[in-house]
Amino acid sequence: MQHRTVHADVPSVQFPPPAKSNLVRLGHGAGGGLSAELLDDLLLPALSGTSGPGRRAVPMEDAAVLPGTGDAELLFTTDSFVVSPLFFPGGDIGSLAVHGIINDIAMMGARPTALAVALILEEGLPLTILDQVARSIGWAAREAGVAVVTGDTQVVNQGAVDRLFITTTALGTRLPGMHTAAAHTQPGDAVLLSGPIGLHGTAVLGARKEHGFGSRIASDTRPLHGLVRVMGAAGGTAVHTLRDPTRGGLATALNEIARDSAVSVEVQEAAIPVPEPVAAACDQLGLDVLEIASAGCLVAFVAASQAENVLAAMRATREGEAAVPIGRVTDWPPGRVTLTAASRVVDMPAAEQSPRIC
Amino acid sequence: MQHRTVHADVPSVQFPPPAKSNLVRLGHGAGGGLSAELLDDLLLPALSGTSGPGRRAVPMEDAAVLPGTGDAELLFTTDSFVVSPLFFPGGDIGSLAVHGIINDIAMMGARPTALAVALILEEGLPLTILDQVARSIGWAAREAGVAVVTGDTQVVNQGAVDRLFITTTALGTRLPGMHTAAAHTQPGDAVLLSGPIGLHGTAVLGARKEHGFGSRIASDTRPLHGLVRVMGAAGGTAVHTLRDPTRGGLATALNEIARDSAVSVEVQEAAIPVPEPVAAACDQLGLDVLEIASAGCLVAFVAASQAENVLAAMRATREGEAAVPIGRVTDWPPGRVTLTAASRVVDMPAAEQSPRIC
Repeated sequence: MQHRTVHADVPSVQFPPPAKSNLVRLGHGAGGGLSAELLDDLLLPALSGTSGPGRRAVPMEDAAVLPGTGDAELLFTTDSFVVSPLFFPGGDIGSLAVHGIINDIAMMGARPTALAVALILEEGLPLTILDQVARSIGWAAREAGVAVVTGDTQVVNQGAVDRLFITTTALGTRLPGMHTAAAHTQPGDAVLLSGPIGLHGTAVLGARKEHGFGSRIASDTRPLHGLVRVMGAAGGTAVHTLRDPTRGGLATALNEIARDSAVSVEVQEAAIPVPEPVAAACDQLGLDVLEIASAGCLVAFVAASQAENVLAAMRATREGEAAVPIGRVTDWPPGRVTLTAASRVVDMPAAEQSPRIC
Repeated sequence: MQHRTVHADVPSVQFPPPAKSNLVRLGHGAGGGLSAELLDDLLLPALSGTSGPGRRAVPMEDAAVLPGTGDAELLFTTDSFVVSPLFFPGGDIGSLAVHGIINDIAMMGARPTALAVALILEEGLPLTILDQVARSIGWAAREAGVAVVTGDTQVVNQGAVDRLFITTTALGTRLPGMHTAAAHTQPGDAVLLSGPIGLHGTAVLGARKEHGFGSRIASDTRPLHGLVRVMGAAGGTAVHTLRDPTRGGLATALNEIARDSAVSVEVQEAAIPVPEPVAAACDQLGLDVLEIASAGCLVAFVAASQAENVLAAMRATREGEAAVPIGRVTDWPPGRVTLTAASRVVDMPAAEQSPRIC
């Protein structure tokens, strides 16, 4: 893994940066530092009608908790899926759009209860492709036990969209005894990873012929709400924080938790499971596996007293059979993520290394 | 209005039609007959995992009622907005995306309670445009008294999307005493229209320089949940059905209600308010105003005994000050919409006359 760049511990890039400052860049949607800046400095002030940049008041979670829903807290989340190509080993844009939105609900310690699906189609798209994607949406929803209850279809002129985009929105209700949140991680927590990282991002890159490493890797896209339910039953409120390392990869997930919980996260590099083909693909492409999207694993921050229980419960599931502890949480320095073996600071990626993997 | 084509009372086009049958066409997203066929014959079977075409089991509403939510019925709906150009007289894609989704909730006799906003941005989009659209989203949501509680931003490569698309999703709760649905219209009902039709569609077409009739028309985009609340207070359960004539215009709205309620709708052509500039634009473009999208009016089917009450209440609001009765409902022939003055059958449009007006 000598290909990895060691990120210096410099202040994050200020917005707007000097060059290209007035245009949307791919990195603005990549889930890393640029995304956070766009949100903090443009979108949130604009949506709230305030002027000028400012920091968000509360951590951003994978889903919003609707106020006034009492004990049966209602969760609400939306995501657009623009992956290219539409089909890749292990999945397609349809199953990914269902799994991804279910997992956003699951990371809040909740079970998904209903899905909405909005399709934007390019004029001239073969109906067989639409049929295949729609069947995949239906299959993924049924497998997960969640109904698609409403939807929308728009068709735009040829060239106005790249074939087919999907926006999924999900509702969910909090599982009894769970209350995970980005700010709930505490010093002393164990960091658990449910499975190997990097499979989804490298599978999609491999499916683009340009990279030439073929399709030896299959995406790990799958719903994780069953795993979360088992973890909640084993650990309850001791499960402090859950995050699926999609856009921006594990580096982004860990940095967001470290920042929002104001803790230091120490990860043992050697403990992170990286499948050999994923490592090889990253080597070939010069990518940092910590920044590659996964679509079927989660990272959990669990009180040390319950970590063994929760880990054992995870390993008893199919989704979590390869679960491992990868590190621990300390109180200093807050907001810092460190790889202990390599003793390097893992920074929030400024932008994604390769776009449109979800 | 001699420009209008008289639709013959022929059976609707069968899917797949002989030509271009294997490709998505613009009309598949236009809200008319082709949209219905795509939904019935491809999307619903594919999503449900069944094979072959089949008719839907229940009428499609503007929003889904979530099961198990008891008296405080919870409504859920999603829509993508792809309007071109992004800015037009009277509004922009941001305000339209908020108003449109609020109105889908309102047509169910409900008040909107929360919004989700998903943005798909093209790399290279000026941030000033994004800022302007985001401010418009925020303004429209605040004016309507509904919070944007969650969101998502994706950026795709230049050329993979036409600048900026928005998918909004809304939650709502049913207003006390209201229970509107597409199938609830009954023979004897009065048909009320809250205001003039065609302003939105012609405003957007006018904003495209290609048509050369400039921008003399402003879109009527606005939220209608306040009007619906007033109508519910005046008429309660006597307000049987509400529909906003967006994609596919009034012709589609009336046909859907006639079909889903198995009633005949008789409309007096002279009673339908069409602003003079809208009529002139339709003449110039050869479009049928009955098929042009509106964004700020609704058509209501109200029990005759309460129609005067409801109409008076509508007229006391700003959104409904120009409300008029335009027709009545009979029992025969079911599924038929007739313009009485011209004695012509108003058919469901097969496809929209001009795309991307919402």
